Amino acid sequence: MSGRPAQQQEFTRDNLEAVLKRRFFYAPAFDIYGGVSGLYDYGPPGCSLQANIVDAWRKHFVLEEDMLEVDTTMLTPHEVLKTSGHVDKFADWMCKDRVTGEIFRADHLVEEVIESRLKGDKEARGEAAAPEKVDDKKRKKKVKEIKSIKLEDSVKEEYETILAKIDGYSGLELGEIIKQYNIVNPTTGGVVEPPIEFNLMFETAIGPSGQLKGYLRPETAQGQFLNFNKLLESNNAKMPFASASIGKSFRNEISPRAGLLRVREFLMAEIEHYVDPEDKSHPRFDEIKDIKLRFLAKDVQSAGKTDITEVTIGEAVKTGMVDNQTLGYFLARIYLFLIKIGVNPEFLRFRQHMSNEMAHYAADCWDAEIKSSYGWIECVGCADRSAYDLSVHAARTNEKLVVRKSLDEPLVVEAFEIDIEKKKFGPKFRKDASKVENYLTSRTDCEKETMAAELEKNGKVVFKVEGMADEVELDRNFINIEKRTRTEHVREYVPNVIEPSFGIGRILYSVLEHAYWSRAGDEARGVLSFPPLVAPTKVLVVPLSNNEELNPISRGLISQLRKFGIPSKVDDSSASIGKRYARNDELGTPFGITIDFQTIKDQTVTLRERDTTKQVRGSQDAILEAVRAMSFGTASWDDATKDLAVFEAQEE
Amino acid sequence: MSGRPAQQQEFTRDNLEAVLKRRFFYAPAFDIYGGVSGLYDYGPPGCSLQANIVDAWRKHFVLEEDMLEVDTTMLTPHEVLKTSGHVDKFADWMCKDRVTGEIFRADHLVEEVIESRLKGDKEARGEAAAPEKVDDKKRKKKVKEIKSIKLEDSVKEEYETILAKIDGYSGLELGEIIKQYNIVNPTTGGVVEPPIEFNLMFETAIGPSGQLKGYLRPETAQGQFLNFNKLLESNNAKMPFASASIGKSFRNEISPRAGLLRVREFLMAEIEHYVDPEDKSHPRFDEIKDIKLRFLAKDVQSAGKTDITEVTIGEAVKTGMVDNQTLGYFLARIYLFLIKIGVNPEFLRFRQHMSNEMAHYAADCWDAEIKSSYGWIECVGCADRSAYDLSVHAARTNEKLVVRKSLDEPLVVEAFEIDIEKKKFGPKFRKDASKVENYLTSRTDCEKETMAAELEKNGKVVFKVEGMADEVELDRNFINIEKRTRTEHVREYVPNVIEPSFGIGRILYSVLEHAYWSRAGDEARGVLSFPPLVAPTKVLVVPLSNNEELNPISRGLISQLRKFGIPSKVDDSSASIGKRYARNDELGTPFGITIDFQTIKDQTVTLRERDTTKQVRGSQDAILEAVRAMSFGTASWDDATKDLAVFEAQEE
Repeated sequence: MSGRPAQQQEFTRDNLEAVLKRRFFYAPAFDIYGGVSGLYDYGPPGCSLQANIVDAWRKHFVLEEDMLEVDTTMLTPHEVLKTSGHVDKFADWMCKDRVTGEIFRADHLVEEVIESRLKGDKEARGEAAAPEKVDDKKRKKKVKEIKSIKLEDSVKEEYETILAKIDGYSGLELGEIIKQYNIVNPTTGGVVEPPIEFNLMFETAIGPSGQLKGYLRPETAQGQFLNFNKLLESNNAKMPFASASIGKSFRNEISPRAGLLRVREFLMAEIEHYVDPEDKSHPRFDEIKDIKLRFLAKDVQSAGKTDITEVTIGEAVKTGMVDNQTLGYFLARIYLFLIKIGVNPEFLRFRQHMSNEMAHYAADCWDAEIKSSYGWIECVGCADRSAYDLSVHAARTNEKLVVRKSLDEPLVVEAFEIDIEKKKFGPKFRKDASKVENYLTSRTDCEKETMAAELEKNGKVVFKVEGMADEVELDRNFINIEKRTRTEHVREYVPNVIEPSFGIGRILYSVLEHAYWSRAGDEARGVLSFPPLVAPTKVLVVPLSNNEELNPISRGLISQLRKFGIPSKVDDSSASIGKRYARNDELGTPFGITIDFQTIKDQTVTLRERDTTKQVRGSQDAILEAVRAMSFGTASWDDATKDLAVFEAQEE
Repeated sequence: MSGRPAQQQEFTRDNLEAVLKRRFFYAPAFDIYGGVSGLYDYGPPGCSLQANIVDAWRKHFVLEEDMLEVDTTMLTPHEVLKTSGHVDKFADWMCKDRVTGEIFRADHLVEEVIESRLKGDKEARGEAAAPEKVDDKKRKKKVKEIKSIKLEDSVKEEYETILAKIDGYSGLELGEIIKQYNIVNPTTGGVVEPPIEFNLMFETAIGPSGQLKGYLRPETAQGQFLNFNKLLESNNAKMPFASASIGKSFRNEISPRAGLLRVREFLMAEIEHYVDPEDKSHPRFDEIKDIKLRFLAKDVQSAGKTDITEVTIGEAVKTGMVDNQTLGYFLARIYLFLIKIGVNPEFLRFRQHMSNEMAHYAADCWDAEIKSSYGWIECVGCADRSAYDLSVHAARTNEKLVVRKSLDEPLVVEAFEIDIEKKKFGPKFRKDASKVENYLTSRTDCEKETMAAELEKNGKVVFKVEGMADEVELDRNFINIEKRTRTEHVREYVPNVIEPSFGIGRILYSVLEHAYWSRAGDEARGVLSFPPLVAPTKVLVVPLSNNEELNPISRGLISQLRKFGIPSKVDDSSASIGKRYARNDELGTPFGITIDFQTIKDQTVTLRERDTTKQVRGSQDAILEAVRAMSFGTASWDDATKDLAVFEAQEE
């Protein structure tokens, strides 16, 4: 592509939103019923853009790396999400105005009230408060009016610290801040109740009895973990390998805002890459090691700064900033994917999570953040979930979720072993016998060592077993504990999981912002410069007039394009050529083929490029060949059209 | 494709299910937690088969017909589904054993108990009861044991009539049958309570207050209807046109059974084709009119028969058996699609709904039914939903959902009109003024005529308005009613909707059954003969041994295949060639390329065809070209390999 001009008008979100609405990229769902916040429908161009992004994702990740794609259910029983930790920890803090009943997300309330006080302070100090941006006006704000009140210097500083740390506070801390700084309902001045946890999963009942509680999944990951054994077998037991899934997940946001960036139902694409915890190298790391990325490491953030380190991923792994090759490999692959589909690399960075913001399952985590008019937004997470999920599901279900690896050299292991006189357990413990046995067999090596010492010293061991009233006492008639040496030929381990997780809606919105610009001197003439790879329609066929001789030529071209697998449309409306091209600039269609009366004579047509409005002319076959070369993202305009005649036409 | 041999072993569902499980096409979801009935996960080959079917669907329908694809939310607020009728009518009848609490789907309970009594009767009469099939054993049955009891002839006849009509009974009727024939819980003999309605939608609460009740959508259609105005505009206001959507829908089945055929979460692909109710012709009808389909019309069924009429769709529309061209066009297109993806045309019929089984919104409906070991199963519905949905949503929201058509010749219309003296309404009715006005303007032409007569006769009209205590009385000072002639240049109408609706999971399962067979003489050697178009993997690359010289050749081939967009896999495991081919026959991979030591010398490889196990040998380029020609479904094996040398090898 020739690319859009570097010197473009400043981005205004209002202009983009007008285009997205007019061309039905997406719209609030159920809007004739007044809408439901956080729910959006994708119209034809948005749906197609989404499908193309998903298709590019599948080729870039699943096919390229031979991943095992699965499609698992959204309905998930309570027990599974209780085990994974989501029932207890997948929550936000909310507080309620006890008079009006209005509900606020606690951190958002604190943030908005304090921001408005700082603005009021600025005004009172006579500092030139930055003029409010259109964007800020459009955001549904709780604080309607800024009061010009000067703050004490120390208070101002405290406020700034609170804002810097806002993502890291617990509910208790938020409650204290609300009390200490008298944060109230900004509309009514009413007192708000202390924050309580609100679980973000949508709950439902499965089956007619209403007794099987379930949720809509908050992520696709759990469905992949539960199938681990079947997936490992599908992969002929080879490690490392990855599963992948593309599907909707759900999050019952307290008060959704920011358009597609925070919604209640969203498309995710997630990869679970299973590795040996003792070897997180990646066989294809060399292929990407020289790619430079922009990193924002956790120690930089802890120091209150946002300085970017721009180094190669090879360097980043070598210095230990990025923990291991597999994590690094995926960061580079994520970068390549995002650039390919139209994210501006200048507006892309990788931010490491600080320990206080890490999800409950993560050992390390980097977010690909994309900058838009809403600021830097997490669009892809790349977490090392360690062995957390597989371990907890295995423990809960007594189903082993492990890899067995033949050892090149047998391993000699020293360990304590407990011998149990099973025959004597029955008569002594009756129905509790298996409980006691399970207790003993599930001791760690260290616990066994302690028990061995106790047995040695006292001639017996005494312990409590859950679900039994009395203490259990066992002497040498019942057990023996000894340190023994054994030879192992197989190593059994729970794999660690590296998880790149993509929010498709957030990425799609970022691509829209980065693709949008307007023609010099005319703010209303918007263009969406999608790369051909993801453009909803690749070619617009435009017959100059509705003349009957031109129609068969249009149909022939469309049928050729369809044969090549190139999505295309005819615009045979009566609007002027200029209007029709303008409409399709808004739809982001990269190529236009014009059929005119000359075509009837010599079969030549004109090809127009969206961003530069350059035109060339040639035979239908030559033009189709050029379009084909460019649509699959390999040839540039200059290469593809070098043998075609430049066509000068006054366009609009 | 050469196709599988006509003479194959009899189909046994157990054998197929063993393959599907072993190769992880799909499996019960959450099975390490004991599973949840009616929920299934698709493993890698199932997921890929599904994606290929969806991709074929999109090309066959959406791209071919320029449909407007949308992606709308699954979460749907109560009000929308109340209006569409689903809150009141999307239900099954269930009854409960008041002692054990067990819940039965009423029609299934009646069916199973009566079937078992008829079997017992047969035994008692000494008639050779057909040996129970394996399939029946696997079905979770309520009736564990058949009691050999002879029935009176009249009772036997009544039972047979009940079974024949089982799909058409109301809840009340089912309750009467249960009472009259003493249908009880077959396990305990306990009395069951009268049937009550159970709504099949999953309910949830949207937002933190818990006050916005919502459901998981039971179909994708409503999301399309609500966007009708935006879609019409996207189509430049041209009619007819269609929208389409592919996505999950949900149905909280009372007691799911029959594997993928009756599940609680399922992928649908739905088309809503909007037509002028006065012109349901289809511009492309001629292209398909000579296709012969197998019809089971409603009058045949009403006569208690199942005779098939096999005629061209042109004939079926001409005789009125199929109501109109658009409905007929889609039946033919559905047929072409199903055949293309591997449904056996002998096991496909189109059955018309009888009026008592039609969904609450449908005016006419044909099901594409596919025969499998579960019997004839509805896999695609093709309903004429008339103007039902658009009308009810428009009435509820006061948002017009109509098409405006410029008339070629202006239309002269005679109609009654009511003139209102608005200025006098305010003082007379105060806050009720607009209620009275709305009442008057929303009268039908016939009602206006009656009022005109009343005004003429009495000098006033008297009527009741909802929400007002007193009767309203108006004389000529307030209104005037007159018959007038006006000229209309635009016709406004609510379009009718023809809806082809595809259950992807049911189609996928049918394709699996139709594709499955086993090699002569060896029931355990299963083959899935998918058409290359939908096969999960197109090519298996098999290096003869794990020799280091062969590996780069495998990688080169895979990289070439990837460049052509042909999904392929290497199997470099240590299993024998025969075992590796057998494994991939089970995965339905149509082509195998073998690399051996000859390849190192002369670059030739062997190509194997799955169904016939025929092999040919040629240069890598020639083989790749043949595979490419066949993978996109255009060339046959004989055509694609005619220049290649036949290769004779003992395979296994």
